[in-house]
Parts: sequence; structure tokens; C-alpha cells
Amino acid sequence: MKLRDLATPALVVDVAALEHNLEAMAKELPGTRLRPHVKATKCSALAKRQAALGHRSFCCATLREIEGMAAAGLGDDLLLANETLDARRLGRLDARVTVAVDSPETVEAAANGGVHEVLVDVNVGLPRCGCAAEDAGRIADLARRRGLTVRGVMGYEGHVMPLAERAQRKQACDASMAKLRAAHALVGGDVISAGGTGTFDLNDVATEIQAGSYSLMDTYYAKLGMPFRLAFCIWSTVVSANQTFAVCDAGLKSLGMDHGNPTIDGAKVWFCSDEHVTFSRDAESDEPLAARVGDRVRVWPAHIDPTIAYHERLHLVSGEQVIEVWPIDLRGW
Amino acid sequence: MKLRDLATPALVVDVAALEHNLEAMAKELPGTRLRPHVKATKCSALAKRQAALGHRSFCCATLREIEGMAAAGLGDDLLLANETLDARRLGRLDARVTVAVDSPETVEAAANGGVHEVLVDVNVGLPRCGCAAEDAGRIADLARRRGLTVRGVMGYEGHVMPLAERAQRKQACDASMAKLRAAHALVGGDVISAGGTGTFDLNDVATEIQAGSYSLMDTYYAKLGMPFRLAFCIWSTVVSANQTFAVCDAGLKSLGMDHGNPTIDGAKVWFCSDEHVTFSRDAESDEPLAARVGDRVRVWPAHIDPTIAYHERLHLVSGEQVIEVWPIDLRGW
Repeated sequence: MKLRDLATPALVVDVAALEHNLEAMAKELPGTRLRPHVKATKCSALAKRQAALGHRSFCCATLREIEGMAAAGLGDDLLLANETLDARRLGRLDARVTVAVDSPETVEAAANGGVHEVLVDVNVGLPRCGCAAEDAGRIADLARRRGLTVRGVMGYEGHVMPLAERAQRKQACDASMAKLRAAHALVGGDVISAGGTGTFDLNDVATEIQAGSYSLMDTYYAKLGMPFRLAFCIWSTVVSANQTFAVCDAGLKSLGMDHGNPTIDGAKVWFCSDEHVTFSRDAESDEPLAARVGDRVRVWPAHIDPTIAYHERLHLVSGEQVIEVWPIDLRGW
Repeated sequence: MKLRDLATPALVVDVAALEHNLEAMAKELPGTRLRPHVKATKCSALAKRQAALGHRSFCCATLREIEGMAAAGLGDDLLLANETLDARRLGRLDARVTVAVDSPETVEAAANGGVHEVLVDVNVGLPRCGCAAEDAGRIADLARRRGLTVRGVMGYEGHVMPLAERAQRKQACDASMAKLRAAHALVGGDVISAGGTGTFDLNDVATEIQAGSYSLMDTYYAKLGMPFRLAFCIWSTVVSANQTFAVCDAGLKSLGMDHGNPTIDGAKVWFCSDEHVTFSRDAESDEPLAARVGDRVRVWPAHIDPTIAYHERLHLVSGEQVIEVWPIDLRGW
């Protein structure tokens, strides 16, 4: 199928950019040095490409993601990098599943759910899940007493990712990882799991990096000057236009909005409605705004994760040709 | 099933509040005076409740919504209140379908797609779709020359909805409707379709009101002091907690964020991550924050439309009992 003939709005992926990103990361962090996070892309077909490049351990944020990865034959080493109070769906799977625990209740849930392995999740500065570093040994002991194998620690330095300067990120990452290292000394085990796309080459404490966004990127991460290309956008049709502004058929239900408006090349985005983006010519651009009714425009999302979660499939595009369609099969909970 | 046993995050609907809202609106705008918009709720089972209360004409924003409503046996009078450049999926349906047109291209698409009836969409002040009021007659003439029946006009005064004061909304609505009335004089036809939840009892020009959010509401609309109750929320589990803050398992992938953070009763929401909301005790609240690991909390979304679009089903709840589950079957495009 031609890209032109695709019904809109549709997620399209530039295959060359995707492959560039996957290969650049696999070179930097080969094999199990990367534990690709599937939450950003929610697509087991994309995960299979990562596996083909040598990564066989994966990271998930939801039970559904773990189940889908196991069903796709990618269950060699799945980490639920999140807390759950009901792990029974995980204990049933024919897959190696490790879960994050940060409290007596989550240890109990893992044991009761039939999960055998855990990581102790440590708060390394982002106010979200994770126990205090000094409590990590106590949680590990609890887990061992419940018969669980403690593989090590994890801690996500999510507050570091948006820092604009590389040196700032390095400094903040080091401070976070000092906490994780201290926790690891109390916990033991082989695994120190941490990091993300924003610190993939800055974090020198983690034994494995949990990066996901790097494969497709977004306009927010693209500002950080990393060696990854913007590889996906919303393919959209201009459905209405006048001399002042134009309207295309992407909108709040096809775009995660927590990082702000999407970007349209050469245009100024006014606002998004449920099924529309209103935009005009960018006064600072030399390019005239091509916006006649029926034209197609690329809408670049600001945040990949909540954008992908709205869509049913990724359309892989090479030039003007749609060469493959991948289901976004890991949505929901 | 008990509410307590529901896997989280889950959309839950208070049946009594929903029924209150549906009945209050049906009393104010009986039968075809209301054309319920399905875009907010994307649920044909909910639309069937509206139909049972006497509304047999419905409003949709996407082709998928129209198809789903037709498949559900609710195809008596479906309006695509949106522009499309490819109406062929509509022309195939065994349903009465009317589409909005605002340009020669959209007229052509309707005719080529096998659609028989149109409304001329008029820009009444919101910079989005719709032709200028003075062009409406020309668009109607074009449509008639292409063999289409022009039923009248539509125009959505979306910019009026968020105005906090009722008197402000009334004034702005009147100004918008003056434009729509002028366009109608040029177009003719029986239908003047306009309005929304924020102007349902202020718009005295429209022959039918396109309201959708009223059935379940959100915290944004709830501030307007209308006779509708907040009827849905995200049912969520506290998965991590300490003395300073707690974290529950709703997040950016279960909440539309364009209207800002959700609300948790008695709590201060710090921020949302992909699968988490971090919150603390509200310093101004007298209530202690009940936030032990395993507790359930109600997370009230700020914007209904992009919230519902993330979810697979509505769980209807009466007291502590889940009494029915409705698929959110009209998602996607």
C-alpha cells in the first residue's frame, strides 16, 4: 500500500530511522547490557527486532505487557519494573518473570502469586515507587524469608531524563546511582537495573539499562542531542483549511498531551481538540504552509508513551510505501 | 463482582449518577431536541440507554463511531459532525448517515462515498472546521448540484464551553448562534445542529443540541455548576506509599491530560507518570490521607473524552457491587 492511501490518523514509522536507532543502541549496549523497555512502544513485533539484535531480556510496566511478551515467545527474562498487589497472572505464565518489590505487601503479593524472582525497587530521587535505600536490605530479607530469589536492585532516575544538558544529567544520574549502589550493598545479587533513554550512556553503575523510547523517540527526547532519530509520527489529513489556519485529523485521542502540543514542520500549532489539530503558517519559516484540504501532514508527538497507547497498529514505511503493519498488541492492563 | 476485586486501573461508573444525568437531560431536551454525541463515551451500550430515554438521533466524530452505532442497531439518524475526505465506509452502511461538509472537497467526498445527506458546517467562532457563514449558501448549492440533500447547518461553539460564568456563556453562545442563524438563512433545511454540555440550556437557536459529556461528566465540566453529577472515575490501587507521598496505578495511559492533572479527594496530586499518579495529603484538608499500600482510590479525570479513549470497558457500579460491564466499542478510527 502507498502511504498516500493510508486511512488517517495513523501511526507511521520510518523503517530506516527505526533500524538506525535499534542498531546504534545495540552497538552501545549489546545483549543483556540493554533490557529494552516495552512500555513506550507496546509492540511485540518491535521487541522481536530488538531480540534479533541480541537483547533477550525485556522490561515491562504492566501485567498485560508481560503476558503479551510471553505469548509472543519473548519470555526468556521478563521484568515487571513496577509494583503489583496481585501477581497471580504472572505466576501462571510459561516464562521467567521477575517483579519489582518495595514493601512487605508487594513481597507478599509476589510470593502468593507464584512468582519466584524479585528485584528490590529503590527510590533514587524520583518521587514514585521504590523503598528508601536504607530499607532495601530489610525488603530483601523479607523476600528471601518468603522463598523468593532476590536478583538484585532496580531504581529509575526518571527525574534526570528531562535535564537539557548532558553534564547536568551525568551529575544527577551519579547522585541517584550512589543511592542505588548503597542499596545494592545491602541487598546483594547480580542485577543493578536502572537508566533510560536519557541516561543510556551516562549511567555507569547499572548492569543493565531500561531504555525504551530510543527506538522511535519523540520531540521531547529529540532535544537532548542523542544519537537516535525521530522515527515515528501521526500521518494525518487536512480536513479543513482557510486563508488563516488549517485543521488536520489528528487530535487529543491520537496524541499524548502531558508534554505539550505536537509539532508540524513549518507550522505553528494553535491547539488540539479531540480529533483535530488547528495550525497555521509558522511566521518564522520561509516555507509556505502547504495546507490545502486533502493534503497529508506529519504530526510529531511530544511524548511517545501515551501516544502509542491510543493506537492499534504501527505502519512501517519506507519512502512512499507502507511495507509492514505491526499490531500494538500490549495495550491495556 | 465486588468493586474491591476489580483489577486496576479500571473505569468505574456510578449507575445512580449516570441515570440521574441521562434523565435530567432527557427531561430538559426530550427526543430529537438532543442529538447525543457519542465521542465522549464511545460506548454503544450507553447510547442504548439514551435511546431508551427517547433520543434516536446521534452524533459521531469518527467513521468508526458511525460504523459501531450502525452495527449496534442505532442507525436511525447518525450525524458525522466532522469533515471527511473519504466517505466510502459510510455509504456502505445500512443506516441513515448525514455528514458535515465545509468545502468543495468534502462535498465531493460525500457524493463519491455514497452518502445522501449533509449539513453545512459553519465556523461560529472556534478556529476549527466549518466554512465562513457567508460561504454557507455556496457550499449548500454545490452539494445540491452534486445530488445531495442539504438538511441544514451545524456549528459548534466549542470556545464557549469553558467560560466559567453562565452569563458569559450565554452572551458568547448568542454571538456564535447569530452567525449560525445567518448561515441557515442562506442554506435552508430543517436542522440547526449545535451546542454541547456547556450550553445545553443556553442555546436557543439550535433545533438540536450535540451534548455528550453530560452523561458521565469530568472535573472540568463539573466546575460549571450544571445539573449533572460526576459519574465516572478511574478505580486505582495504591501500589507504593511512604510517610510523605503515595503512588497509585492510574497514569498518563489511563487519563487524558490536556485539561491538566486529575483529582483525588482529600489529596494533592503531585504529577502523573505513564502508569502512576503520585499524591500526598492535601494540606488544606481536614481528612487524613488514607494511603496504605493496597488501598483503592478514586482518580477523577479532568477531561472525559481522551480518558475514555484509553480504556476497553466501563464497569457499572452500584454501591460496592459491579453490576454490569459495557465495552467501549467505538474506539479508534
